[in-house]
Amino acid sequence: MFAKIILLLWQYDLLLCYTGVMKLKAVILNCTLKKSPVVSNTQALIEKVVTEYKKLDVVSEVIRIVDYHIPFGISSNEGTGDEWPKILKKLIAADIIIIAAPIWFGVRSSVAQLVIERLDGTYAEGDKKTGQFPLYNKVAGCIVTGNEDGAHDVAANTLFNLSHLGCVVPPNVDTYWVGSAGPGPSYIEADGKHHLYTNKTLRFLVHNTAYMAKLLKKNPIPTNLKELIVEAQEESHEPTDMEKEKLLHG
Amino acid sequence: MFAKIILLLWQYDLLLCYTGVMKLKAVILNCTLKKSPVVSNTQALIEKVVTEYKKLDVVSEVIRIVDYHIPFGISSNEGTGDEWPKILKKLIAADIIIIAAPIWFGVRSSVAQLVIERLDGTYAEGDKKTGQFPLYNKVAGCIVTGNEDGAHDVAANTLFNLSHLGCVVPPNVDTYWVGSAGPGPSYIEADGKHHLYTNKTLRFLVHNTAYMAKLLKKNPIPTNLKELIVEAQEESHEPTDMEKEKLLHG
Amino acid sequence: MFAKIILLLWQYDLLLCYTGVMKLKAVILNCTLKKSPVVSNTQALIEKVVTEYKKLDVVSEVIRIVDYHIPFGISSNEGTGDEWPKILKKLIAADIIIIAAPIWFGVRSSVAQLVIERLDGTYAEGDKKTGQFPLYNKVAGCIVTGNEDGAHDVAANTLFNLSHLGCVVPPNVDTYWVGSAGPGPSYIEADGKHHLYTNKTLRFLVHNTAYMAKLLKKNPIPTNLKELIVEAQEESHEPTDMEKEKLLHG
Amino acid sequence: MFAKIILLLWQYDLLLCYTGVMKLKAVILNCTLKKSPVVSNTQALIEKVVTEYKKLDVVSEVIRIVDYHIPFGISSNEGTGDEWPKILKKLIAADIIIIAAPIWFGVRSSVAQLVIERLDGTYAEGDKKTGQFPLYNKVAGCIVTGNEDGAHDVAANTLFNLSHLGCVVPPNVDTYWVGSAGPGPSYIEADGKHHLYTNKTLRFLVHNTAYMAKLLKKNPIPTNLKELIVEAQEESHEPTDMEKEKLLHG
Repeated sequence: MFAKIILLLWQYDLLLCYTGVMKLKAVILNCTLKKSPVVSNTQALIEKVVTEYKKLDVVSEVIRIVDYHIPFGISSNEGTGDEWPKILKKLIAADIIIIAAPIWFGVRSSVAQLVIERLDGTYAEGDKKTGQFPLYNKVAGCIVTGNEDGAHDVAANTLFNLSHLGCVVPPNVDTYWVGSAGPGPSYIEADGKHHLYTNKTLRFLVHNTAYMAKLLKKNPIPTNLKELIVEAQEESHEPTDMEKEKLLHG
Repeated sequence: MFAKIILLLWQYDLLLCYTGVMKLKAVILNCTLKKSPVVSNTQALIEKVVTEYKKLDVVSEVIRIVDYHIPFGISSNEGTGDEWPKILKKLIAADIIIIAAPIWFGVRSSVAQLVIERLDGTYAEGDKKTGQFPLYNKVAGCIVTGNEDGAHDVAANTLFNLSHLGCVVPPNVDTYWVGSAGPGPSYIEADGKHHLYTNKTLRFLVHNTAYMAKLLKKNPIPTNLKELIVEAQEESHEPTDMEKEKLLHG
Repeated sequence: MFAKIILLLWQYDLLLCYTGVMKLKAVILNCTLKKSPVVSNTQALIEKVVTEYKKLDVVSEVIRIVDYHIPFGISSNEGTGDEWPKILKKLIAADIIIIAAPIWFGVRSSVAQLVIERLDGTYAEGDKKTGQFPLYNKVAGCIVTGNEDGAHDVAANTLFNLSHLGCVVPPNVDTYWVGSAGPGPSYIEADGKHHLYTNKTLRFLVHNTAYMAKLLKKNPIPTNLKELIVEAQEESHEPTDMEKEKLLHG
Repeated sequence: MFAKIILLLWQYDLLLCYTGVMKLKAVILNCTLKKSPVVSNTQALIEKVVTEYKKLDVVSEVIRIVDYHIPFGISSNEGTGDEWPKILKKLIAADIIIIAAPIWFGVRSSVAQLVIERLDGTYAEGDKKTGQFPLYNKVAGCIVTGNEDGAHDVAANTLFNLSHLGCVVPPNVDTYWVGSAGPGPSYIEADGKHHLYTNKTLRFLVHNTAYMAKLLKKNPIPTNLKELIVEAQEESHEPTDMEKEKLLHG
């Protein structure tokens, strides 16, 4: 009986969703090393993801990080000229956050690492009441391209970092294309757009992130991190002053 | 108005949950290298997690893998004497799956890797209709201990693997204890039970996995992987016969 | 003038080497999950390496770890029935140590991890005078096969671990074969033996490990670790008793 | 007899070395995110390494990457204003190359990754005769600092990348300091300079890199990569034109 009512509400929500009343928003950060208008293989794969999101009525915004002035650092604002704050604002307004990164030397690009480092600043900007970081209740995904090997390492680290920052990671939300062992053609040149595994996994990513984002929007994680920290303190050594400052960090 | 009804239902569910009608079940795999009854540092940290789960009325079962006969392999049943099938059965009945692993040489223990490899078999056991793997809609977490360095690598890879196998990874569901640089005392000897960061993160793990498990139980991910594969095939190169067999794998 | 004499000596040594007086010995550990006589893709790539070593008069011995009874553990001898001691003896007698591992879930196989863990025991068996671990002055290499992605992670961790245990890592001593993104055919089935990148890198591995092994045989690293530890102690906090025991470990 | 002559020559060389005739040169790249004059914990640990190098008469040059204008990219020269070419020149003139990196989010800093990416350009600048990349016959080392966890991952990837670029990795050439689990004080604040494990391993790094650099200077690896590629081609599928271009790459 209750199940039925829930189902009904759910369908109603879907309705709202499909009529645009509560459209989901995905922000995809393209972490290529190459500035526009140079062709980016990562961008080519991103575009396929965007197409699938459209079918589910999810609005995507793609941001090519290297086109902006974003200094190295670990705060949310590194001063005059820093364009990170406006990107961060978009991430905080998003329901789904996707990091799209090329592989270099087996790991994620320096630009992807820069983005993760800049997100460190959000740990200090938790909700006053719950202590939840600003990315809590958002959904994470990952897109990886490379001419070979390294996709697992990029996806594992990137999704883990995003989950530490507050995101939920649904199943199968990494999609990637890599060629066989050794240097070789990249995604576009190798006709990666017809690669079955990639076309399959990008759909898994899109459907699972969209579902989870909708679910979390209605049922946000209620955990009060601040209260749990107080509990933890009671059974721990007295923290030093320095530790006290850092208690709310990830 | 709808929000209120949902809230009401939710509270009712919580009620059911707390009265034991739909108790959540967590299975925690202790991947220490040491057989019982040798003292396991990983076990000591697991026990703190179990205590916190109890407070939320989540039932935990801890399985020390090395006490069972589990051959190397990548199938769900490696033949006579293999005790993996009975462990797998428990995982499939669980709501929450936690892999608890010691660090050796900077990465997860061979026993943890063995467990992940044996789970490979589940990719071939997807739901007939949706293609979802048996671990879909379960929630993953990770516990790590070591005398030093490596916890991030263990957690990132382990949570990523579990998400590939179907699990959802909520935020902050890794808890770990490690000492400072170089060999040194382990969790028990170093009085890790009073380490604030570990005591804090184990609570985050417990609360976030429990909430997410409850949420997924009522709202399982509906994605039909089989249908998405058909869609993907339409825009891909014709798969070879060999690829066809492997299409449903992770 | 001195350069000429050295060159002369060197050529003489080469002569000795090619006439078999001081043949180099390589031990290659096949860390497949599959027991003999099941076909191993890793074995197929190993055999190509063995063929190249023969051309340089390097003698290879291949050991398929899973065919032996090797318990989990971190000592050099885990008691009755443990067959690790006889394998370790061969490693200590070798000039070149190659770990050959399949990729599972993006990282090295559990069997490869087991081997590395068992080598932990050698840290406690350093030379009485210099403190050098038994694998000092040996040369490391790595062979990796997988149907896709993960070779860099396997090679990076494995070569790093071996260098920690005392080995020297020459340039380009990892050779691997992986297919493109997603599950697919393995090395043998995919005709990997005709893959140019793999055929190139296995030659780099063979030539560079052989040269370095010969060089180290004549010019072993003289570093006295024990003396350096004494120096380090002088500028460090007083170690605890527990730390004292562990001082010689890696 | 020959051994004695070699020993004699060796001692003579040491003499030359200690009298400054053939002083070794180490270039240490500080990959902190913080520009001068902000205090860098990584710099503090670097300075201890420099002090030990001095005792062995090895000359060190420390370069703080973030103080230069180095654009993202994978070539040796990214155009007007790029200061990488002058740093690369120093690396090519060095005997020892040390990458010193802070840990952020469990992995190496974006600045360290940027450095590795820029080194990609050297693959295309191999020796005309042997095909050896410009970093061949140099010796690699790694220095890591972080307030916690991640040193193994940083060192493993960084040393592996450098070995791919041509460097030799001697045993025990990573030194690091990290605190226990969770955010906390960094190297300087935590009095890391008195941490025994770090003080021990930095000496191992200094002595083993210095010995190996001297050894390689007199006995450079003679492998002719170009000839081995020709051999490899003979037993491989005909490479495509694109592959031909990339044959000499790492």
